[in-house]
Amino acid sequence: MLDRIGDKWAIYVVDRLGAGPRRFSELLRGIDGITARMLTVTLRGLERDGLLTRTVHAAVPPRVDYALTPLGHTLREAIGQLVGWADEHLGEIEAARSDYDARSCPPPCAVETAVG
Amino acid sequence: MLDRIGDKWAIYVVDRLGAGPRRFSELLRGIDGITARMLTVTLRGLERDGLLTRTVHAAVPPRVDYALTPLGHTLREAIGQLVGWADEHLGEIEAARSDYDARSCPPPCAVETAVG
Repeated sequence: MLDRIGDKWAIYVVDRLGAGPRRFSELLRGIDGITARMLTVTLRGLERDGLLTRTVHAAVPPRVDYALTPLGHTLREAIGQLVGWADEHLGEIEAARSDYDARSCPPPCAVETAVG
Repeated sequence: MLDRIGDKWAIYVVDRLGAGPRRFSELLRGIDGITARMLTVTLRGLERDGLLTRTVHAAVPPRVDYALTPLGHTLREAIGQLVGWADEHLGEIEAARSDYDARSCPPPCAVETAVG
């Protein structure tokens, strides 16, 4: 199961759907860096896990909504803790990265040698 | 930051180090499926983020311990929520997967066509 919850795209999608149902195109626009292919794979995996539903509405063209299931909402709460942690500690982490880079490779050495 | 916390190997390493300092070889043995290369990259990334420390003890051969920093321990608490969620809901997820596979591809169709 950690394969799914340890997938950053799945984390982003579940977090985004926590605000309510979204269409494919809304998710694609709203998640920075995701490709249509990765979004498709991520949505299918989350649907298979029972974490979201895919609803096709009769319209021209057909409208497809993705929404969290009750199980998906419980995952979103656990993910929210992690996202909150990241927001809260981002400054400390960035400071630690600068320190690490300066120690392992002082200026004018390029920082690209450190693990990104 | 989600690049790091949305990395399953980082999640496993932080969770494992929550129980106390570990050597490289202990982590390598204790984390199913991780390679020495991935463990090296993961440890270096977590050290750079200020989430763990790497301590070299004078011994022959030198002993190297990895341990969570106070910041790493706060991440471990947030990760613990997620790991707990996964443990608690694994049965539901497996049932959802079986349903999905049966719907999208009834027996004797192979289940490999579904997203793993």
